[in-house]
Amino acid sequence: MLFDDLFTPCLLIDKQKLTDNINRMNQRSKKLGISFRPHVKTTKCIPIALLINDGMIGPITVSTLREAEYFADAGFRDIIYAVSIVPSKLPRVNALLSRGVDLKLLIDDLGVAKALNNQNLNFTGKYRVLIEIDVDMHRAGKSPDDPAVIEIARILHEGQHSEFSGVLTHAGESYTCHTEEDLINAAEGERSLIVKAANNIRAKGIPCSIISCGSTPTATFAKNLNGVTEFRAGVYVFQDLFQSGRNVCEKDQLALSVLTTIISHKKNQNHIITDAGGMALSKDQSTHGTDFDCGYGLVCDLNGKLIENLFVKGANQEHGIITTQDGTDLDYDKFFIGTKLRILPNHACMTAAAYDSYNVINQNEKKIEKWPRCNGW
Amino acid sequence: MLFDDLFTPCLLIDKQKLTDNINRMNQRSKKLGISFRPHVKTTKCIPIALLINDGMIGPITVSTLREAEYFADAGFRDIIYAVSIVPSKLPRVNALLSRGVDLKLLIDDLGVAKALNNQNLNFTGKYRVLIEIDVDMHRAGKSPDDPAVIEIARILHEGQHSEFSGVLTHAGESYTCHTEEDLINAAEGERSLIVKAANNIRAKGIPCSIISCGSTPTATFAKNLNGVTEFRAGVYVFQDLFQSGRNVCEKDQLALSVLTTIISHKKNQNHIITDAGGMALSKDQSTHGTDFDCGYGLVCDLNGKLIENLFVKGANQEHGIITTQDGTDLDYDKFFIGTKLRILPNHACMTAAAYDSYNVINQNEKKIEKWPRCNGW
Repeated sequence: MLFDDLFTPCLLIDKQKLTDNINRMNQRSKKLGISFRPHVKTTKCIPIALLINDGMIGPITVSTLREAEYFADAGFRDIIYAVSIVPSKLPRVNALLSRGVDLKLLIDDLGVAKALNNQNLNFTGKYRVLIEIDVDMHRAGKSPDDPAVIEIARILHEGQHSEFSGVLTHAGESYTCHTEEDLINAAEGERSLIVKAANNIRAKGIPCSIISCGSTPTATFAKNLNGVTEFRAGVYVFQDLFQSGRNVCEKDQLALSVLTTIISHKKNQNHIITDAGGMALSKDQSTHGTDFDCGYGLVCDLNGKLIENLFVKGANQEHGIITTQDGTDLDYDKFFIGTKLRILPNHACMTAAAYDSYNVINQNEKKIEKWPRCNGW
Repeated sequence: MLFDDLFTPCLLIDKQKLTDNINRMNQRSKKLGISFRPHVKTTKCIPIALLINDGMIGPITVSTLREAEYFADAGFRDIIYAVSIVPSKLPRVNALLSRGVDLKLLIDDLGVAKALNNQNLNFTGKYRVLIEIDVDMHRAGKSPDDPAVIEIARILHEGQHSEFSGVLTHAGESYTCHTEEDLINAAEGERSLIVKAANNIRAKGIPCSIISCGSTPTATFAKNLNGVTEFRAGVYVFQDLFQSGRNVCEKDQLALSVLTTIISHKKNQNHIITDAGGMALSKDQSTHGTDFDCGYGLVCDLNGKLIENLFVKGANQEHGIITTQDGTDLDYDKFFIGTKLRILPNHACMTAAAYDSYNVINQNEKKIEKWPRCNGW
């Protein structure tokens, strides 16, 4: 496949930027001196997971059982499924375990801990289970000092069909930080509270082998991860406008974009219309309400160079509406119908989910690689 | 597949509500006395397109060439691709035409009209082309009285490789209407302006066979469609919270929902966490800023009965956060972990796009049907 033959809209990966983002995080892992478990929820892509680990199969985090199965099919074995499990989903877990996949589960509830031990008469092994710890009231998990944490750990530790494997947290509130100082503090809060939860459990004589934390912002800004055994991050491989707006990355580090074609001119409204609408970009408006509001995305030329002052103002199902940020007139001669542009997304995870593959471009090469990804549950 | 075996999150269609919505629009078509061309962009589903037309293959509208190919594979022949074509996309159009598909294209630009005739040396047939008319400054198209409309029609009419087939419009601004009166006026505006555009063209001696208009709101509220040859609508088959908030339908007419499982309790925040997050529901917040703000969706029990006062407040990638609208305490005993709920989506087109199939349920039947859909471009 040649670059000129790509049908729009489609996903582009700038391989150099991808590699740079990957190397940067791997260097952090070395510097921090602890192992890194990439979250594949953003890319859902085998070649990228391999690229992160020098071409070898390594530990991963997944957000769906579909991802676990997809990566298991490619040989991945050390997998944390970082969303609370419920008993009704165990048949697919059991199938993975019976294939030799070391799939670790996550819970934050005493009833589920008991159910894992009681409700699986056909299951003869032991589920390896982490407890989710909530360090910043962002999503799920028990607070580090909640006595239920010890209770759940004990049930898992003593259960016939479970093994307590450790604690896991995700400092999602770091996504709301604005300054480097806030980001450093969020990282230190995440680290200290997950270590505290682990120490509380260990003080009761229960071993706690995995202490897992991470998010792209905290993984990028943590000064140290003392006491933690592994850290995680997902969106860093692509980065996106949201991360850029929070000063987690630079705008020119964004590796993912949507290739689009100009399909119409609305001169009486100062609009350009493209074929990348809400389906192609997602309806994510996470930069909205910030001082870095990008609408549904920022606009680059075909070579990936940001075109200042343009943004995607609207997104109908299959129509993207581009105009100027300051209201000045568009130069329609420059943006003739048929022109291809690249749109930088607000939120790479959501945008990538509309596609079943990536088109990977190398600077100065016309030939592109096609990398598949999985979707669904 | 039995209902109890469904893996969450997944899409549910209430077949009775779907059928009722379809019948209601078909009755409008009969009453208005003109033919109806369903837009398959919402469902992208062959069984539903057949259901609309009494089990037979009928005319359809598509929003992507992928849809055109998918429906052509199933035998559909009379297709309007209702997004502006650009010359780079013609190879796939040509492939469809050479299979005998009567694929009609849409343009709003003189340069493209010329390009259709000049740039296809290998193409020996005639493209059937409609001109997009803009009746409400919503998206693409030329204003009805723009002299360019006549010019484009003439180029198409006289071109060696094109045939002018008619005019098409979509009154997208009807989505902003609030009252029945506004909706009736939007429908009449759409009708009168598209007929005006057609009459302008006919007055120049150019035949205009197709006069196509429509959107779910205007198709539902049009008092008459005199002068129009066909009308279109898409989302009406499912309806959604946005349409309901605009009084286009009742909340109990929504045929599509997302089946989800409660996976965590956050009692200290009065949250229930489910496995239907942003990926499963989409990030569409089109009810936001209206007096009918539903967050990321409203909540029904397993039988589809709306649970008053609950809504999906937040949507992380794989976590949906449900709480009460008035801030009163949740009853966690009622919503225990493992409980299945149904979420009504803001925007059915966007939500359905995350899935490759529908689970179709019939009242009082445990067995479900699985209907596939297409995605991508």
